Amino acid sequence: MPFFPAEIIKKKREGRALDAAEIDFLIAGYVSGSVPDYQMSAWLMAVFFRGMTELETSDLTSAMVRSGRSLDFSGLPAPAVDKHSTGGVGDKTSLILAPIAAAAGVPVPMIAGRGLGHTGGTLDKLEAIPGFDVRLPLSEFASAVRTRGVCIIGQTDEICPADKRLYALRDVTATIESLPLICASIMSKKLAEGADALVLDVKHGSGAFMKTRESAERLTDGLMSIARAHGKRVVAYLTTVEEPLGRFVGNSLEVGECLAVLRQGTYRGRAARDFADTQELSLRLAGDMIWLARLTPTSESGYREAERLLLSGQAAEKFEEICTAQGGRLAELPTARLTHDVLAASDGYVGAFDCEKLGLAAIALGAGRLKTTDAVDPTAGIEFHAKRGEPVRAGEKICTLFASDGGRFQQASAMVEGALTISLQMPPAIDLITSRRVG
Amino acid sequence: MPFFPAEIIKKKREGRALDAAEIDFLIAGYVSGSVPDYQMSAWLMAVFFRGMTELETSDLTSAMVRSGRSLDFSGLPAPAVDKHSTGGVGDKTSLILAPIAAAAGVPVPMIAGRGLGHTGGTLDKLEAIPGFDVRLPLSEFASAVRTRGVCIIGQTDEICPADKRLYALRDVTATIESLPLICASIMSKKLAEGADALVLDVKHGSGAFMKTRESAERLTDGLMSIARAHGKRVVAYLTTVEEPLGRFVGNSLEVGECLAVLRQGTYRGRAARDFADTQELSLRLAGDMIWLARLTPTSESGYREAERLLLSGQAAEKFEEICTAQGGRLAELPTARLTHDVLAASDGYVGAFDCEKLGLAAIALGAGRLKTTDAVDPTAGIEFHAKRGEPVRAGEKICTLFASDGGRFQQASAMVEGALTISLQMPPAIDLITSRRVG
Repeated sequence: MPFFPAEIIKKKREGRALDAAEIDFLIAGYVSGSVPDYQMSAWLMAVFFRGMTELETSDLTSAMVRSGRSLDFSGLPAPAVDKHSTGGVGDKTSLILAPIAAAAGVPVPMIAGRGLGHTGGTLDKLEAIPGFDVRLPLSEFASAVRTRGVCIIGQTDEICPADKRLYALRDVTATIESLPLICASIMSKKLAEGADALVLDVKHGSGAFMKTRESAERLTDGLMSIARAHGKRVVAYLTTVEEPLGRFVGNSLEVGECLAVLRQGTYRGRAARDFADTQELSLRLAGDMIWLARLTPTSESGYREAERLLLSGQAAEKFEEICTAQGGRLAELPTARLTHDVLAASDGYVGAFDCEKLGLAAIALGAGRLKTTDAVDPTAGIEFHAKRGEPVRAGEKICTLFASDGGRFQQASAMVEGALTISLQMPPAIDLITSRRVG
Repeated sequence: MPFFPAEIIKKKREGRALDAAEIDFLIAGYVSGSVPDYQMSAWLMAVFFRGMTELETSDLTSAMVRSGRSLDFSGLPAPAVDKHSTGGVGDKTSLILAPIAAAAGVPVPMIAGRGLGHTGGTLDKLEAIPGFDVRLPLSEFASAVRTRGVCIIGQTDEICPADKRLYALRDVTATIESLPLICASIMSKKLAEGADALVLDVKHGSGAFMKTRESAERLTDGLMSIARAHGKRVVAYLTTVEEPLGRFVGNSLEVGECLAVLRQGTYRGRAARDFADTQELSLRLAGDMIWLARLTPTSESGYREAERLLLSGQAAEKFEEICTAQGGRLAELPTARLTHDVLAASDGYVGAFDCEKLGLAAIALGAGRLKTTDAVDPTAGIEFHAKRGEPVRAGEKICTLFASDGGRFQQASAMVEGALTISLQMPPAIDLITSRRVG
């Protein structure tokens, strides 16, 4: 039976579930040009209002995967495992967990993203390393995963072209904020890149896209449902972003923090123990990657293996191997030319952070982008001298801002001051990890 | 402040009311090409789900009027009045009321539509008259209304081009069925054609687009609200379509019925009294057109004036004048080559009609179109020998089908038989006019 796009739009508009053939017809037709933009955007808006069942969302994911090439690492000794984070201010765990997992023998096919809005992106961090090439062709990526065990690149046109086109259309038609569309977009790329299992880090709080735990739980439900429908094992962490992860926000600064963790060394006068939250979250996620790859019998033993590989320096070696292989010259990691200190206005404890505002302050310094076409200054960013709950005295440095252009400090420091509160009472502690789910 | 289409779409998506400037930006931008189809269709779908306030709907109507040319007949001795019907099976009153009102001195600027789906269209009926030209340029239309008092043409590209483009977009994006969009589409054309007042015939029942009285009431509310907001007086009739109006359905057949009413003569052996419902509804609507034009002090005296003009033959003369002026040769009204009788299967009373099915049977005979590109056979149609509640005997003719192609009778007669019921008890009477509202 032939399909008519308007009939499919109407069916969704009326709240009826579409079958796999109808969804396939739309997505394949959109990519081939037979279903025009204007029908797709009407359908997207109908999906925004009516939602999709778990089965529809899984079928949409499959259709998007089929729009491009898919990799398959099933011949390797261990299952391939990737991690996906929904993004948070200072989130830099990929740079630590990928080499740890790879050092453990997990094949890690990592197709990462760029920063947009208040959160950063793995690709921007890696590109802060002079020479690091994230634009390898897909065939080179696949052979690097097979031989070296890990490769990190950006989205290519060969993987899920439907997702790329749909995202651009959603961006201009106010249809980004639809849970099934978000879930299908994330999972289609992970399925196409050949991951056999997945660790999810779904972030919530002021510095994440999901502001509440409830919305993060719903997103996690959606992502895990697709993974299950495609036979992929998955571990999902819900984690809070109520303060930046670690001490540094900004691309080269975050690479420096990661190197200090990997080498158990120092960065800008700070020891690895100053980055305890970054290290702990990275080990938890890496531990589950090792477990999902069936290299250890339990998640706990995966964690211990991850810790061993970190403390022994093997993960640091793997990271250096990745950098060398992808052309990155770690020794030339750049440093910002200019700094500016933000001082505490009063005595007290560091209280609530408005992490979204902090992320926007980092953009004001040049560290990120509001539009996909904005240029990024790899050295710009912020160092946090005090973490939540720590005592400060009036006049003490609480942050240091980094930029190449001193003209950016005035606006950014005002934004940082507005994003920090100093309270007389010690604020209640917030757990970094809210929950862990296995599915 | 500049506007961004995606922001306007989002505002509507969130259920917030748009202001006139935002609506204007969208509509003007759509017509000029700066707002692309895919943003417009996402907005239309958001409107489908969120609706529009009365003010927004009125602003949308204004924006659509401003997208093209507007006529103004305010210099004429009486206000210009048009009628709009939402369409029903056998609805042919325009051909009778337009000459009656014009004969009374009402300027009648009538821009009419074509049939689509189970209902017919005034243009198709007029085009059944050989030579009748409904495609006059707008300037010729305006001068005909000024000099002759009446002209009937089809939609031109100069009137509400935004409506034409939006309707085509709605048709392929499942966004036709939105009350504010329907109301703005209808009213924009009536405002642009220069009508100072309007008689509405909002039809409900099995042969209308609105199946229930409630939905017809809501449509009437919407249309009257726009009229009020634009300072136009309006009389709205709610009328039922539970049987075809009159005795004939089909283009040349309906013209024949109208001529019999106008001339108080006969058509195919039937006298004008056989078309009492057609005549009565036409007089009621024409009477209010005369009243709205302030040519009589009351609606009742408008009715009496309409009746006088009909019975005196002045309306018939006016109709002949219209035909001659627009090139139509009434004497050559074509007749179908072939007929086929549908017989009553049992004794009883003619009961419920499924008028939508009857309309589709007329299409099966060639009298209408399912797609805008279908060709129409002007002579095809159906004659109803028995009206609702009349007694019939088994074997008596209840309908006669007309077509140029005998191969069409089998399917159509089965459809007609399926659309008629003969019941043992006399069915309850249904009033043709449900209500009349003045606003």
